[in-house]
Amino acid sequence: MSDFDSGAIRALAFDVFGTVVDWRGSIIREGQALSAAKGWRVDWPAFADAWRAGYRPAMERATALGPDGEGAWANIDTLHREILDGLLSRFGLDGLTEVERAHLNRVWHRLAPWADSVRGLRRLKSHFVIATLSNANVALLVNMARHARLPWDCVLSAEIVRKYKPNPAVYRMAAELLGLEREQVLMVAAHPSDLAGAARAGLRTAYVPRPLEYGPGGQREPVGDLRFDLVATDFVDLAVQLAA
Amino acid sequence: MSDFDSGAIRALAFDVFGTVVDWRGSIIREGQALSAAKGWRVDWPAFADAWRAGYRPAMERATALGPDGEGAWANIDTLHREILDGLLSRFGLDGLTEVERAHLNRVWHRLAPWADSVRGLRRLKSHFVIATLSNANVALLVNMARHARLPWDCVLSAEIVRKYKPNPAVYRMAAELLGLEREQVLMVAAHPSDLAGAARAGLRTAYVPRPLEYGPGGQREPVGDLRFDLVATDFVDLAVQLAA
Repeated sequence: MSDFDSGAIRALAFDVFGTVVDWRGSIIREGQALSAAKGWRVDWPAFADAWRAGYRPAMERATALGPDGEGAWANIDTLHREILDGLLSRFGLDGLTEVERAHLNRVWHRLAPWADSVRGLRRLKSHFVIATLSNANVALLVNMARHARLPWDCVLSAEIVRKYKPNPAVYRMAAELLGLEREQVLMVAAHPSDLAGAARAGLRTAYVPRPLEYGPGGQREPVGDLRFDLVATDFVDLAVQLAA
Repeated sequence: MSDFDSGAIRALAFDVFGTVVDWRGSIIREGQALSAAKGWRVDWPAFADAWRAGYRPAMERATALGPDGEGAWANIDTLHREILDGLLSRFGLDGLTEVERAHLNRVWHRLAPWADSVRGLRRLKSHFVIATLSNANVALLVNMARHARLPWDCVLSAEIVRKYKPNPAVYRMAAELLGLEREQVLMVAAHPSDLAGAARAGLRTAYVPRPLEYGPGGQREPVGDLRFDLVATDFVDLAVQLAA
């Protein structure tokens, strides 16, 4: 956009699932090791897609207003588990014990970053505060950062305000807790709808498409007529464009 | 305590001012450089002590119930500034411009760690999740971590629940956001009253006295008949005791 001044940016807030880490490839790899050990046949790509497909409806159910008009809340670990339990028999995973189910549910804590993520984040961190701004819960993001060596300055989550993106309260919370004006925060995401929510809340936006998020030839959220302040091919390119 | 099992601990939550960083020495050093540049005479040790002495009453005023019964709130940057403004003329600092006052107020973002802090935190991080649990606001803690190279997994602050320690809501928030039972979280602090609050909320406690926090011969919060799960001389000793 013509009025975008990257010199005003002080912090970058990152979407995580799909933007920083490859949830689909990670689930498939860990699943394949699991079924090989069990001698089972499981369609892990279809399983990963089905698990992820349950995510948005589960968040909508979780935050639906209760009978008292108060917003309800359940965190992503809980929602992932509900969706998982609904998929086990369909994918031939009934034989998993409770301990194995709980461990599989936490595969989301062990997702692998895209190849450029850690290098790009390190470069960006030398010039900007870098924070998560994810619908995932804090514990998941902390465990993931330790596992994948993601060098966050700060782990911010929708959990803090008990609402999910694209609710504007989530984006506003990030600017407020970082002690910044909203236009000093650049939201980085692979999903146009997330960036549209950030822009409505007054943040700046950087679109980093991840064409393999849903696998080769997989779906991709349409951009439509949305415009972003920046578009980058990966996090290293983003650092170059921000002179970081 | 006899029932303490360090093997149950998963995360360490650290008080910051005085426990991790030397606020008094840092303010004195930065103040002396400032007054030398101005050619002023300022009693910086007395100034630092007066600034800090305003902190507890300011938090109590800030969280006093308003006329509508709702808890009020102001963050530590705001409280530090209110206290600072009340001290300027008494210490001969009236000549500071608004920009210089704002910069001085942010000395709390630039505090130096105790000599063992970074080394001890790195060792502890290899075995445990390490998080702040401070009354300081998130932005202050993030800037301090970048400045002092404090390797937090997670920056947690009283600001998230808009109440100050020792309110139990602050300690409970830490366990909840870290996805842990309260007895899996070890609160680390140089202040017995903070640890007493943590224990009341169900957390485990490690006392790390910092005898120089208030300067040589300075005051020190009495321990009274409080008992802690661990007592360590510094963070490296704490790591040794936790076999980290």
